Amino acid sequence: MLGRSTRPHKPGLEPRARAGLDVCMAEPPSNPRKRRIHKRAPPGSKPGTLIADPQAPKPVLRAFGWGPATCEELAEMRVADLPALRARQPLVWVNVDGLGDAKVVRELGEVFGLHPLALEDVLNTHQRAKVDEFPGQTYVVARMLEAPGGVLETDQLSLFFGPGWVVTFQERAGDSFDPLRARLRAHEPELCGRGADYLAYALLDAVVDGYFPVLEHLGERVEELEHEALGSPSPRTLWGIHQLKSDLLLVRRAVWPLREAVLGLARQERPGLTADTRLHLNDCYDHTVQVMDLLENYRDIASSLIEVYLSSISNRLNEVMKVLTIITTIFIPLSFIAGIYGMNFDHMPETHSRWGYPLTLLAMVVVAVVLLLWFRRKGWIGRP
Amino acid sequence: MLGRSTRPHKPGLEPRARAGLDVCMAEPPSNPRKRRIHKRAPPGSKPGTLIADPQAPKPVLRAFGWGPATCEELAEMRVADLPALRARQPLVWVNVDGLGDAKVVRELGEVFGLHPLALEDVLNTHQRAKVDEFPGQTYVVARMLEAPGGVLETDQLSLFFGPGWVVTFQERAGDSFDPLRARLRAHEPELCGRGADYLAYALLDAVVDGYFPVLEHLGERVEELEHEALGSPSPRTLWGIHQLKSDLLLVRRAVWPLREAVLGLARQERPGLTADTRLHLNDCYDHTVQVMDLLENYRDIASSLIEVYLSSISNRLNEVMKVLTIITTIFIPLSFIAGIYGMNFDHMPETHSRWGYPLTLLAMVVVAVVLLLWFRRKGWIGRP
Amino acid sequence: MLGRSTRPHKPGLEPRARAGLDVCMAEPPSNPRKRRIHKRAPPGSKPGTLIADPQAPKPVLRAFGWGPATCEELAEMRVADLPALRARQPLVWVNVDGLGDAKVVRELGEVFGLHPLALEDVLNTHQRAKVDEFPGQTYVVARMLEAPGGVLETDQLSLFFGPGWVVTFQERAGDSFDPLRARLRAHEPELCGRGADYLAYALLDAVVDGYFPVLEHLGERVEELEHEALGSPSPRTLWGIHQLKSDLLLVRRAVWPLREAVLGLARQERPGLTADTRLHLNDCYDHTVQVMDLLENYRDIASSLIEVYLSSISNRLNEVMKVLTIITTIFIPLSFIAGIYGMNFDHMPETHSRWGYPLTLLAMVVVAVVLLLWFRRKGWIGRP
Amino acid sequence: MLGRSTRPHKPGLEPRARAGLDVCMAEPPSNPRKRRIHKRAPPGSKPGTLIADPQAPKPVLRAFGWGPATCEELAEMRVADLPALRARQPLVWVNVDGLGDAKVVRELGEVFGLHPLALEDVLNTHQRAKVDEFPGQTYVVARMLEAPGGVLETDQLSLFFGPGWVVTFQERAGDSFDPLRARLRAHEPELCGRGADYLAYALLDAVVDGYFPVLEHLGERVEELEHEALGSPSPRTLWGIHQLKSDLLLVRRAVWPLREAVLGLARQERPGLTADTRLHLNDCYDHTVQVMDLLENYRDIASSLIEVYLSSISNRLNEVMKVLTIITTIFIPLSFIAGIYGMNFDHMPETHSRWGYPLTLLAMVVVAVVLLLWFRRKGWIGRP
Amino acid sequence: MLGRSTRPHKPGLEPRARAGLDVCMAEPPSNPRKRRIHKRAPPGSKPGTLIADPQAPKPVLRAFGWGPATCEELAEMRVADLPALRARQPLVWVNVDGLGDAKVVRELGEVFGLHPLALEDVLNTHQRAKVDEFPGQTYVVARMLEAPGGVLETDQLSLFFGPGWVVTFQERAGDSFDPLRARLRAHEPELCGRGADYLAYALLDAVVDGYFPVLEHLGERVEELEHEALGSPSPRTLWGIHQLKSDLLLVRRAVWPLREAVLGLARQERPGLTADTRLHLNDCYDHTVQVMDLLENYRDIASSLIEVYLSSISNRLNEVMKVLTIITTIFIPLSFIAGIYGMNFDHMPETHSRWGYPLTLLAMVVVAVVLLLWFRRKGWIGRP
Repeated sequence: MLGRSTRPHKPGLEPRARAGLDVCMAEPPSNPRKRRIHKRAPPGSKPGTLIADPQAPKPVLRAFGWGPATCEELAEMRVADLPALRARQPLVWVNVDGLGDAKVVRELGEVFGLHPLALEDVLNTHQRAKVDEFPGQTYVVARMLEAPGGVLETDQLSLFFGPGWVVTFQERAGDSFDPLRARLRAHEPELCGRGADYLAYALLDAVVDGYFPVLEHLGERVEELEHEALGSPSPRTLWGIHQLKSDLLLVRRAVWPLREAVLGLARQERPGLTADTRLHLNDCYDHTVQVMDLLENYRDIASSLIEVYLSSISNRLNEVMKVLTIITTIFIPLSFIAGIYGMNFDHMPETHSRWGYPLTLLAMVVVAVVLLLWFRRKGWIGRP
Repeated sequence: MLGRSTRPHKPGLEPRARAGLDVCMAEPPSNPRKRRIHKRAPPGSKPGTLIADPQAPKPVLRAFGWGPATCEELAEMRVADLPALRARQPLVWVNVDGLGDAKVVRELGEVFGLHPLALEDVLNTHQRAKVDEFPGQTYVVARMLEAPGGVLETDQLSLFFGPGWVVTFQERAGDSFDPLRARLRAHEPELCGRGADYLAYALLDAVVDGYFPVLEHLGERVEELEHEALGSPSPRTLWGIHQLKSDLLLVRRAVWPLREAVLGLARQERPGLTADTRLHLNDCYDHTVQVMDLLENYRDIASSLIEVYLSSISNRLNEVMKVLTIITTIFIPLSFIAGIYGMNFDHMPETHSRWGYPLTLLAMVVVAVVLLLWFRRKGWIGRP
Repeated sequence: MLGRSTRPHKPGLEPRARAGLDVCMAEPPSNPRKRRIHKRAPPGSKPGTLIADPQAPKPVLRAFGWGPATCEELAEMRVADLPALRARQPLVWVNVDGLGDAKVVRELGEVFGLHPLALEDVLNTHQRAKVDEFPGQTYVVARMLEAPGGVLETDQLSLFFGPGWVVTFQERAGDSFDPLRARLRAHEPELCGRGADYLAYALLDAVVDGYFPVLEHLGERVEELEHEALGSPSPRTLWGIHQLKSDLLLVRRAVWPLREAVLGLARQERPGLTADTRLHLNDCYDHTVQVMDLLENYRDIASSLIEVYLSSISNRLNEVMKVLTIITTIFIPLSFIAGIYGMNFDHMPETHSRWGYPLTLLAMVVVAVVLLLWFRRKGWIGRP
Repeated sequence: MLGRSTRPHKPGLEPRARAGLDVCMAEPPSNPRKRRIHKRAPPGSKPGTLIADPQAPKPVLRAFGWGPATCEELAEMRVADLPALRARQPLVWVNVDGLGDAKVVRELGEVFGLHPLALEDVLNTHQRAKVDEFPGQTYVVARMLEAPGGVLETDQLSLFFGPGWVVTFQERAGDSFDPLRARLRAHEPELCGRGADYLAYALLDAVVDGYFPVLEHLGERVEELEHEALGSPSPRTLWGIHQLKSDLLLVRRAVWPLREAVLGLARQERPGLTADTRLHLNDCYDHTVQVMDLLENYRDIASSLIEVYLSSISNRLNEVMKVLTIITTIFIPLSFIAGIYGMNFDHMPETHSRWGYPLTLLAMVVVAVVLLLWFRRKGWIGRP
Repeated sequence: MLGRSTRPHKPGLEPRARAGLDVCMAEPPSNPRKRRIHKRAPPGSKPGTLIADPQAPKPVLRAFGWGPATCEELAEMRVADLPALRARQPLVWVNVDGLGDAKVVRELGEVFGLHPLALEDVLNTHQRAKVDEFPGQTYVVARMLEAPGGVLETDQLSLFFGPGWVVTFQERAGDSFDPLRARLRAHEPELCGRGADYLAYALLDAVVDGYFPVLEHLGERVEELEHEALGSPSPRTLWGIHQLKSDLLLVRRAVWPLREAVLGLARQERPGLTADTRLHLNDCYDHTVQVMDLLENYRDIASSLIEVYLSSISNRLNEVMKVLTIITTIFIPLSFIAGIYGMNFDHMPETHSRWGYPLTLLAMVVVAVVLLLWFRRKGWIGRP
């Protein structure tokens, strides 16, 4: 999924950034993921006001209904079809891709009795992962991570579940639930023979499992940048390190609160959560701990990278200055000697001597050799 | 509200800061927000002594009174009008803009029985957000944030509430409560049908909602500075980063204790706080957590920015030094050759040869080309 | 008290530090506050051994005694006068300025039954703020801060109180208790009508209130150093930043444990502390929290300052190097051209041409202009 | 085991890294330990799905069975032989080296009733150390550390134990359990006379004891790098420091959660853990605390090292620049004087004077001496 | 004890480090205190195996026995003499200097019934301070600090106490218990009239009191290094700062766990610890808190020092570069002018003019003066 050739930088940057003498650094690639958060309702509005982002994609609904015997799937269904489905099947999962229409959210809320404060959070897609308990329902927020084309993106998953039903909202299409859907369609007993709480666990587990390829991708970037920072530091490397740190922060903000939320679900006894589901949630919690562990590892390395980069740059400056100093130190005295015998004094006996010129050249060679030996003894050239 | 063109720097700074050879950096713009704290009463005074800041604006009072049926508003009222209003209406909200007169504060304190230690805190406007419980009343301090013209300002909100009444004090006019006032005037049942505790919640929620546009503004500044630090670092960028970090600290000092205070209100059972209000306060707490989360994110990025800046500057120095070294290394040996044949020795056979001059020029070209190739191999010019 | 002109640096430093070419930095001003701690008794001695610092000032005692009706003051009294005073008045406060005589401390300890381990701490004046409970008495240590002449100093206040008496020890004369003494002399009912515990609170509150002017002074220094670091960084600035950080640490070490101590007094029920005093101590605790909050703010800014300083210095180096590079890059090729026509070859046709000289000068001008344009395009000179 | 000559760098790096004028740093040695984590099962799969890494070594089983009287050992046994062994002997330990075959793991799981979620963790070898309690069995994960050839490697140890049996899985052959096996073969009463829980403790203790030689090795590297960073900083040093920090992180990630796990085992009463074993686990916990303590010490020093390195590099740059400045500052004025008398004006009276040449040379000597004295006074050459 | 002239650097380093042009930094002084830890028994051995370090000094025993009436001292005694002493006197303290013989440790263990796991810790002298409770005895580990000749050394004190006896083990002779021994010999009632627990407290208190002179010594080094880093930074300073940080870590590792251990002893009720001893342990705990407080202070300053050092170095580089730039910028244009009139064109009218030479000299003076004024305006030379 995350190919080897994935690079964290725009390819268009390279030609300029590599151009040797050009000090004007290329503009860093503009960040495609804006750090904008925008509350839909103005401050002081009535809590629970539902206002959709007009630019968000329109909602597309897909429902699964299943019972001991069968499983049916309704793609691109309407909210009005839900009551019939719920009547037919004891267990129902409705998934909504796209939050561009507040009406659909409100109607679904009415069908399942979702809490207005929770629905407001569904539409304000900058929530932290959390678990909120409302009477007869549990509301879980998680952030899904994807890195299509090497650019990290998050997608807020709002998950409601109650006895016999699960409702999920996603910001846009595309998730890691397809194997789960296949297991539903195959009417797998381990999944279909349990309650709605198990499906909720399975969805959360798929979200957490979806973090692992992202971590693999980040691990590759860490290694690439380590190599660049130590071997061939360029402004592109600096940008890459900064971008990596921002991405790690993004992942951390997704995973850290989810860990707490999953732990809360797993540890606290609640109606509607069987002991079996809680055991599985515990396993899911273990996975979030692993993700955090690796993430903190990457963060520690990334923090160190910028110091490594600065040290590498200083090393190079040192080398540049040594070249300058060696060249200057050798030729300036030689030029000075040449300058002396370029003076136009009438009475300069050396200039009239037959050996003046060759002896002067010899003196120059001696000066140069002495200086070279001195630099060698200092360890600036050759082996010390 | 916070326009696109908002810049964190004084425009007058630019011409000088950009002037190429001018090393004397322009003076950084003086900080309009002084980091002065000043206790009004001298150390050792009697606690509860009320001394107003003579330079603060004079208090302006506005009261709302409402009941099951009606809502009345008294703009620019006097303290003396309050008893009549309280007699007419079961619920009353008095708002005071400006703390320039200790007498008004004292009189209001007498009308509602506000605690003297709390009133002292109202006038010393460098309080942290907190909740203090006094018999028959709850005292909440919050700090409102505004960024008019891109400069962050805080305004201390002191909020007292008890059964049937809410009193608020602000340092100056201007707040984010206008939608709330409109809802009161419209006699909205969700607001007017509940107690004073719900209004107190609604006020706090409006304060917290007011943090979001400020965060949006800070997010834009973070992005701008990231771009500058990576692409075109100037002394202005350094000042901008430092200013950003100070502003983030300011917001943090406002939000962090407020989070605790709201949590305290939401979690602890107290007389005068209905379960419904506590549920809403929980939602408000969630918002403060979101604000903190984003803020910590910005703080992490801002901390990294100064290292990025330093690395960018070092990169540039490196490039400057490469230019110097290349030019010097190429021309110094050439000048030395020219210097040799500028010597006035009588016996320099080359100078009399027909091919002396062209061969010398050729040698110079060869030296220059060899050095250029060497620099190219080093990757200092062109592609490596 | 802390005038505007207070500067954290010795004035004598300036002339040398400013002298342009002089690389030998002026010696940093020697630190007047030595970081020496010295335990009076050798390791392994009997605990409770009282040994006074022979260089400490001799103790001066001042006692207040008061009851429902009157208040009497005994300045420069002797320990022997105390029993009579205690017999006359129900409430007594004895203050000792100067710890140069272990005998006075021992005698006072006998009069009031002060615990030997506590008395040992009185004489070893490097205690952290703390509260120790002994039977029939409470022992509180606090550190008073002063900044006379811009140099921070701490003074250990040891405060004992029991039913009807308060004893305080200070390292030297000078404190912020004078308004309190005036209130005693005026026999103010709020103060004289309550017990010894209230006086103990009032003393601690005066100590905490005394931190605010010190913070104001530190805030001014932070602002000055911000300005210097961004606008005109000099070695003096570096010293100032380092000194500021040390001073902030000093204040932090005084305030942080005091906060804990005051909280301990306020929260824990103890005999001899009325509920009313505990309410006031809570208010005092709030003040210590405010002080810590500001202090942490300053510490964050000060930590950032040294990075800002380093970046400013690097910026300047960059500018210096640009000047050097521009001058060198322009004149070295010109000098090389001049060098070529300074060679003494017999056969240099250009030298004999009429237009050789003017054309060479023209070529030099062209080279210089081309290089200047190139530097301008790079943004090194003028506007980019 | 970790010989003195162990170096953290590839020997092939040295010749290039030491070559004086060569600024193109040698490529840092590629990291043999990839930071890849790879979940075998795709997101959304059924939990407990066992998929083996096809590249992992094939499993090799070795079992010990013992009772009050005898101890027998079965090398390279098959799972099918286990029931007979369990029938013969009351206590059994099965060790598996290599995880390349999911079937063997599944079969062993069936024989001992190991939990499917735990078995999934056995095959996903990027687990953190942990303790999971399942009915009738305890599952412990620990990470073993080895540093063959100076390169740190971790090996996941999965340890199950229940009444009468211990099962361990390792990623590959090679561990620190040989002394333990020898004690079993010798039928040592302290080991063979106790239950399976004591063997589990003994295995964990051997894992923890195996950390000490790794720490010794890391301590040597810290000392070497300290020496290099202070005495002769090279790009190789930078790479070494970065590598050391990564290795310390790796060890920390192994030890930190193990400490928690061992503490959990030692403190919590569980069926199947005797008080005697828990006392020994407490001792083992003490050892993990010692390891962490040393590790944090190394980490603190390693963090400081990169700053030391940067400072050393800056020191050297300073020295290089002083050389350049001294040479340039001395010879540029001298060359200028020579240049003046190289001008071809007709009317230069000095050039015709007999003393012109020697006086000019004298002036040059005077200028050089004055400059040298000035540099000496500045402390740039010789003693200040 | 720690004289003024104590320096943290080898004196032999200075001559080379100060030699101006010599860039090859002197080798940093080799660290006398190796960071080696070495477990005596190989991993997987039987716990409680006693193996002595063959290079450790041989044990020397000294015992005190005392009762209500007398106190006797046995210097250089043998283990075999102990039973008789214990029979004669109700209270016994045995001190062992040197751990080079496992047999003596084993025999003492048998006499007093010391726990084998604890005895193993006595011989592995890299323990953290801790308290272990075994039936009928308490085992305390503390690390004593000494700084003879300015080099910090730690010495593990293993202290066992039970009813009527105290046993202490030290790595080598030399401690801070001599005043305690004198008090025993003098049969001081405060010491001899209490139980073994009080002597254990007195020993721990002497260990903690022994930290204060070490802190005084570290405080002096902090001040010296502050002065050097700000005033005259040299490679020696860098080494000194790094060494100081390592030493502070060493002290911290000794004090931090001891603080916990003493607190554990003071707070938890145990048989064999009287309330009076616990009050004194509380006082001892206060002292460890003071030590930690000062230590953290030094650590904060030391962390800042390396940044200060780097900034100082950058400052100096700046000054060096200014000198280079000023000299080069002034003389390069002058040399260029001289170069022009050194050209050998036939038609250079100026060269034949009478005023050509003086006017050229005048032009040079003007150029030089203009440049000097420009540098002065920039603030690079003289006052700005």
